[in-house]
Amino acid sequence: MSLNLKKSIGILGGGQLASMLTHSAQKMGYKVHIYSPSASDPAGGLAHSHTEGSLNDLKKVKAWSKKHDIITFESEFTNLDGSKIKNTAPSIKVMELIRDRLSQKKLLKKFNIPTSPFSEVRISGFEKKLVLKQRLFGYDGYGTVICKKKTDLSKFITTQANLEDWIQEDFIPFKKELALSIARNKKNEFCILPLVETFQKDAKCFWVKGPVKHKKLNSLVLKVKKMLKELNYEGIIAIELFETQSGELLVNELAPRVHNSAHYSIEALNISQFDLHNLAILNEKLPKKVDVLNPFAMVNLIGKHSKTPKISLPKKGSLHWYGKSPNKPGRKMGHITLVDKSLSLALKSALKEERLQKL
Amino acid sequence: MSLNLKKSIGILGGGQLASMLTHSAQKMGYKVHIYSPSASDPAGGLAHSHTEGSLNDLKKVKAWSKKHDIITFESEFTNLDGSKIKNTAPSIKVMELIRDRLSQKKLLKKFNIPTSPFSEVRISGFEKKLVLKQRLFGYDGYGTVICKKKTDLSKFITTQANLEDWIQEDFIPFKKELALSIARNKKNEFCILPLVETFQKDAKCFWVKGPVKHKKLNSLVLKVKKMLKELNYEGIIAIELFETQSGELLVNELAPRVHNSAHYSIEALNISQFDLHNLAILNEKLPKKVDVLNPFAMVNLIGKHSKTPKISLPKKGSLHWYGKSPNKPGRKMGHITLVDKSLSLALKSALKEERLQKL
Repeated sequence: MSLNLKKSIGILGGGQLASMLTHSAQKMGYKVHIYSPSASDPAGGLAHSHTEGSLNDLKKVKAWSKKHDIITFESEFTNLDGSKIKNTAPSIKVMELIRDRLSQKKLLKKFNIPTSPFSEVRISGFEKKLVLKQRLFGYDGYGTVICKKKTDLSKFITTQANLEDWIQEDFIPFKKELALSIARNKKNEFCILPLVETFQKDAKCFWVKGPVKHKKLNSLVLKVKKMLKELNYEGIIAIELFETQSGELLVNELAPRVHNSAHYSIEALNISQFDLHNLAILNEKLPKKVDVLNPFAMVNLIGKHSKTPKISLPKKGSLHWYGKSPNKPGRKMGHITLVDKSLSLALKSALKEERLQKL
Repeated sequence: MSLNLKKSIGILGGGQLASMLTHSAQKMGYKVHIYSPSASDPAGGLAHSHTEGSLNDLKKVKAWSKKHDIITFESEFTNLDGSKIKNTAPSIKVMELIRDRLSQKKLLKKFNIPTSPFSEVRISGFEKKLVLKQRLFGYDGYGTVICKKKTDLSKFITTQANLEDWIQEDFIPFKKELALSIARNKKNEFCILPLVETFQKDAKCFWVKGPVKHKKLNSLVLKVKKMLKELNYEGIIAIELFETQSGELLVNELAPRVHNSAHYSIEALNISQFDLHNLAILNEKLPKKVDVLNPFAMVNLIGKHSKTPKISLPKKGSLHWYGKSPNKPGRKMGHITLVDKSLSLALKSALKEERLQKL
């Protein structure tokens, strides 16, 4: 089965995920076209063409999408509902299903995939600490409210205009957070990336290390594969996981796209999450497995103030700098990946390199 | 020392070397501009801008070079002699010196760097098998003539209009061929890549494997560093080497640029030859050393006919496909890099992957 290198890829979005998708596709010989709000977006200057436009301008997106063979998403936060664009991967229907936390939770439940108990937001529902999550457009802690006591919840309810835009979930006092990415194509081939541990600081991914193991992983993967098959999912999907105090694996969130938790794959695997996503959306053959020769760690370079950061070349590891402006506290500005002889060495060096940067 | 990410890089040339230089610079947050004969060249669609023009159109190149902070070369085969462009790295003077095999040979001699004996072409010079090399524009066997006997030489001399365009060198019956790349910046910092073995087929690089060792390497590197310092060399330089039957290391050729023999560095090192070249031309700090965690091999995907090749995803390793058209026998169309637990495993798998491709 030879690659059809004539197919062109269109990406909705112009941030660092689009940049890395673009480089991956170009490395394999594909042509990439970006649609994003501004030509100065990180991926704006990297692709074979850039089209400026709002991601919510359905008419413009539709006209653009017709020019390219396959359209994919940098983010699930595009509202193309009902636009009937047929050549997206994943399909718009699947994107709609997953980007809404309520339908995502119902989907997980339908496939018996362990996840935290959830319901619509209701004052009578307060029994123990819980988490309120916006159904749409929540990320990196935005759109998340933790309620420790009943009055937190009642206060939230009285100030919130549209309660139906939120769901509530049991608060999970997890031991650690893990993540996993799985690629699937329409041929129903799967490629599973290694399980990694992730660490969030201020609700934002700070570091990732791997590969790690978990005894419940295989049974979870089987269920997820069944779900992806039924959705006829195309592309890579990231699965954020909690390891509970009792050692269970719960799915926290699905992200129907390439994901920060798998950036390590560029340096640490023979084929990256970006390669796998591109191949999967093009319905090309997926490798049965990926090679993980060494333990790895990735640390995000997150803005700490609004002055221009001073970035220096890491002594160890590989630097990715997204070329975003301006620097902002909490903004993901770049990352460093470290591959080393042991997992602890890799993480230690990665954290050291992060500390040396003036962000 | 923080990176000056505001500096823009201009690359003269639009082939695969320019593509990989572009990706490297963009990954670190730099903006890249390509000047090449056609927008459909491999690197044409990858950069922040593309300017179409002949590499020999001095006026056009000069006007373009003024728009960017630092200009570098994909190839030494640009004729900018006397154009007085000041912001190139390496300098035009250094490029002129190295691209001419006669002055290159004299340079090696001056620094006492072992190389094969050479002279101008003269019939009286035939004592044993020798090699005639075009002084300019020779590559991958083009511009090379092997003379086994005196009549070969006399035939060459009678048919060749400008003998002064050629030099003759003793034929070296080498045990194997090796290669090494060294980056230097104007601060006189050096970064030395691992020594590799290279194998040529039909006078063209077929595979590379490494890292390998050689007892004469250190003394050679010292001499080369001295030469680069005196030239105030900026960027990476590739050194093609012969290991002679008696175990000596002879310099066969210098290439003042990124080089096929170091493509492995994208996957096998924490920092690639392209990263190092970009950092060196920008006079940024160079790492003292590179990390080589695993043995590696690289195999070129070379056109075998003129039909469209059928490329499939390798089971192992990483595919680079340059997006060149048309396919031609002998044309470098892509490469595969393999990183594995042992050098022999890496090379075996790389060669297997090459055989599976329909080139």
